[in-house]
This record gives sequence, structure tokens and C-alpha cells, in this order.
Amino acid sequence: MSKVLITTVPFGDKNRLPIELLESAGIDYLINPIGRKLKEDELADMATDFDVLIAGTEPITDKVMAKAKCLKLISRVGIGLDSVDLLAAERRGIQVSYTPDAPAPAVAELTIGLMLTLLRSVHIANIQLHQGEWQRHFGRRISEVTIGIIGAGRIGMGVVRHLSGFGTLRILVNDIHPNQNIPQQHMLEWVDKEAIYREADIISVHVPLTAQTKNMIRREHLLMMKKDAILINTARGGVINEHDLATVLATGHLSGAAIDVFEQEPYKGNLAQFNRCLLTSHMGSMSVDCRTRMEIEATEEAVRFLTGQAPRGLVPQEEYDVQRQGL
Amino acid sequence: MSKVLITTVPFGDKNRLPIELLESAGIDYLINPIGRKLKEDELADMATDFDVLIAGTEPITDKVMAKAKCLKLISRVGIGLDSVDLLAAERRGIQVSYTPDAPAPAVAELTIGLMLTLLRSVHIANIQLHQGEWQRHFGRRISEVTIGIIGAGRIGMGVVRHLSGFGTLRILVNDIHPNQNIPQQHMLEWVDKEAIYREADIISVHVPLTAQTKNMIRREHLLMMKKDAILINTARGGVINEHDLATVLATGHLSGAAIDVFEQEPYKGNLAQFNRCLLTSHMGSMSVDCRTRMEIEATEEAVRFLTGQAPRGLVPQEEYDVQRQGL
Repeated sequence: MSKVLITTVPFGDKNRLPIELLESAGIDYLINPIGRKLKEDELADMATDFDVLIAGTEPITDKVMAKAKCLKLISRVGIGLDSVDLLAAERRGIQVSYTPDAPAPAVAELTIGLMLTLLRSVHIANIQLHQGEWQRHFGRRISEVTIGIIGAGRIGMGVVRHLSGFGTLRILVNDIHPNQNIPQQHMLEWVDKEAIYREADIISVHVPLTAQTKNMIRREHLLMMKKDAILINTARGGVINEHDLATVLATGHLSGAAIDVFEQEPYKGNLAQFNRCLLTSHMGSMSVDCRTRMEIEATEEAVRFLTGQAPRGLVPQEEYDVQRQGL
Repeated sequence: MSKVLITTVPFGDKNRLPIELLESAGIDYLINPIGRKLKEDELADMATDFDVLIAGTEPITDKVMAKAKCLKLISRVGIGLDSVDLLAAERRGIQVSYTPDAPAPAVAELTIGLMLTLLRSVHIANIQLHQGEWQRHFGRRISEVTIGIIGAGRIGMGVVRHLSGFGTLRILVNDIHPNQNIPQQHMLEWVDKEAIYREADIISVHVPLTAQTKNMIRREHLLMMKKDAILINTARGGVINEHDLATVLATGHLSGAAIDVFEQEPYKGNLAQFNRCLLTSHMGSMSVDCRTRMEIEATEEAVRFLTGQAPRGLVPQEEYDVQRQGL
């Protein structure tokens, strides 16, 4: 009988090492046969007999855990824990681990690419030229604009590091735990979120999805932004209200947006109506090196657990406290 | 009667200062009424009575100059001189100036954006999501790949500087005048072009269009490249043979290309058939700050000339020698 259910897909696709780790430890596994992100009921039906989940971002709710009678470890491939009901896991004695460092470099690099693409309207010119239309768009350079980063964790600070190669910049940063020691080195200004909404030309969000950040950016905040501001979400769908964003884009407000994450994935929605809204398919962590590292780390945790070794990637107590205080 | 014909468009669009410089000096001017890049005959008909051209990339040939009986200065907005017959200008006593430093920062930044976009298939995912299709693409990070820069002048070295914020990199560089002092600082390897074609994952071209570089990258060079290599041209159409590129892309070779410059502009051609070919409309220098600086510098040169002051931006003798040896 299989011990490990791997729900995240693709898995072992560019590098087979995670699968070999399971096989060489003699551990039976099953890879999600549906081949896309599972819905709650699908996962509940599929997970009944497994000891370990190597999990993506599908909803691992109390209902799922109630049916997964053998489940003892949820090993998340990635950092976000919004999809896991940590308190239900705690009550049921199910351990939860994650790979918080592995995705950050890939997400930070993608974010820089999205900034430069939006600043120069590359995505719009590309669609136009593929339709036989030639229009030259003016753009702005990184050093001409004010950049606002909401969330100064692994990813947000990675973005700041990459930006250091682009000259002298004005970077506004917000975090629930501002680290006042950083500004000397990176010329950051710690400000409140409203200052970022009002003053930044590029606003990039790098926060987890929690009760505090759900719908953090709504219509009123979008309207606070400059008319030609650029908004980037590579964090989690739901941090920016998608419906409000589409409504505000329809009025001509904001010069562009890049959205990589959605409330419902796969995404089919109104944002696709706007050429100036650059859309990608939750690809933030999808560089070969980062994805491989995430899969290996999550698999190693599963192997350690099933072979009686001490876990190394358990989710810290703060993350449980975040959910206890809200979600 | 107008003294100055401004052929480049847009002009004075985001910043009116260049137009004000002419007006406050009491100089009559005409802005290209056709509103797009002029063909040779159009320019020849239009330029007959002007003393100065503030010029874009339209062909300023001997034929044009033969009809432009009053012409005494060609003031190029930008760096490229492939569009100007320098030897004909020399024979006819027409001075030529340019703005070689102004465009570089904007082109270098755009190049980084194109690299990141192509490495992560952002352009492909964007087209797919706008068509209601969800596919997650694997990508690579800058630090996972070997970068090849052909042409280590103002723009090529600007690209290298921006890349310094992305960690430890392998960068191969080729230039007709390699500067062996630079590698210590930037971890560059000076190599021949063939080494770049064979070893680089990203190949970005930053050379002028001359007799030596025309059709520099043809079918045989494209086929030398790795199957999943990425090719970027923000320099000049004609450096990479467009027909050969389309033919080679059609066979499945190369994972992507970003082409900003074309043999004929506006571009209508076969490259638009390929979703993995990112197309932009000669937008390299089109940041508001760089474009404004280019227009101001070229206009200041025209004003200096027409008010009897010494020129400051004349094209150096080497550029004439390049054309003497070839074109």
C-alpha cells in the first residue's frame, strides 16, 4: 500500500531525484493522477489511506483530515500555509512541515522581470505585434520611479537585493515587523501601507495569505494609487481583491498589473480582458533549481518521517498563532 | 521658412523642452507630418529646403542629400549611424552629430527585462491566459545559466552592471576591442563569438549595424546555439538575419527570442507566428528620461549650429572609417 500521496503537480518532472529518494528508501508513493490542483472533495476522497502528503496549494481542511485516517505528516512543497488548516492538524496530531527558503530566489527574480516588463509595456507591444500592429510605447526606468514593497521577508528582500544593480533608487518598504537595521545598506524607507499606495509607482506584494492580509488591497486602496501606478502580485490570490482590480482597471486607473496568483486556480476570469494586465500561471517558484530544491526538501522530510528520523522542516509555532488569531 | 526638419517621431511628446529650445531660439521647425519612420523617397521630397535634420533612423542616403541642397547638419537622436551615409555627408560638407550616451541606460534595462521574461516564459503564459488557457511553465534563473554578450560598449556593459545584483554569474563577452581590465571586477570571460553561440544560454547582441555586423547571425550560427538557447536583439535589425531566425524557430530550435529591431520598421513578418518570439516595436531607448535626454541633446546641437556656437556631439572619425572600410 502506498504511504505517500504527492498532490502537487508537476513533480519530479525536470529532476527525478525526489522520486528516487522515495524509491531508494523503499517507500510506496502515488502522484496525483488528476494532474492539476485538487479541489477539497477530490483530495478528501484521494487521501484516505496515506500516511504522508507531499502537498501543493490544494485545500487541506479539517474535512480532508477527518477522512485521511492514516495521515501523520503534511509536507508542503513551498512556503505558503494558507491552504492548510494548521489548527485542525494540531488537534488531530498531524505534523506539518514546509520549505520556506527554497522558492524565494525564483519569485524574487520573476518579480524584477514583471516590473521591467510593465514599466516598458513589453507585454502590450508583444500582443500588438503578434496581431500585426506597430505602436511604440514610452516607458520608465527603475531609477525614475518609486518602488513600494509590501512584505519584507525572504522574497521582498530578495527583490530589493536584485534592484541594487539598477542604480540609486527610492524604495518604500512595509512589513508588520519592520527591521530598522536594513535601511543603511539598501536605502530603504520604512513606511505604512498607505504611504506605499499613495506614493509608489510600482507596488509589489510579498506577504503570506492570512486573516490579516486577505483582501488587503481592495477598491479603496487601488483608487488611492497613482493613476499610472503598476501593481504586482506574486504572493497569493486573495491578497488583492481580483474583482475590485478588474473593476478599477476597466475605469482606466493603473497603467498596468502583473498577476501570477489567483483566488481560484486554474484562473479563468475578467482580468484577461485587459491587455495591460500581464497574467502568468502561478509560476513564481517555477525555476528548475528552486522547484527541484522545494521537491527534494519536502520529500526528504517525508523520508525522514517514515524512517524514524527527526524532522527538520516543521512549521514554527508562530504560524499556528497567526491562524489562531484569525482565519 | 523652417530651418529644422524633425523626422523622428514621437518628438517632444512626453517633455516639451526640446520644442521650447527651438522656439526660444527663434528657430522655425517642422515635425515629420507623416507620423512614422520615413522611406528614402519621402525623406528626399521632404528635406529639400532645410538646414538641419533632427533625425531618427530613416535612410539619409546620398540621394536624399543630393536633393537637400541647404542641408548642413544631421543631428541624430540616438547612437546608431547605419542609417546615415557618412561618406556622402563628408563629401558634401554636411556635418553629422549624435547622442551616443543617452539611449544606453534604457536599452540595458529593457534587455534585462527581456532576459527574465524569456527565461520564465512570461510572454507565453500571458498569451495563453488571455486566451483562457492555463499552463505552468518551468523556467531558469539568471544564476543558473550562462549569459553571452556580443558587443561590450555602453549598452552591453550596462547589462553586465545590472546583472551584478543577481548573484554569481557566468558571463561570456565578445567585442572587437576586448577590454581585458574589466573581468576582475565583473567576472567576465572574453571569448570569441563562436564560443558564445555554442555555450551561452542567453545571447544578447549590442553591436552597431556595420558592414562587419550585417547578417552577423545567420542560419549556421543559430544552429550552433543550444536547442534551448534564448536570443535577444535590441541593437539593430539586420544584425540577426530575420528570415533565418524564423526558419530556425519553425524547426523547434531555440527556446525563445526577443526582437525589438527589424530590417523594415514598422515590422510585419513571419516572426509574429511564434508565441515564443517576444516582439517589441523598437522601444529600447523609449524610456521617458532617455528619450527626453536624446531629444534635448540633438536639439541643443541644432541650436548651437544655427546660432554660430561650436558643436559638441560630432560623430568621431572612427565612425567614418568604419563605413569607409565597408558599407
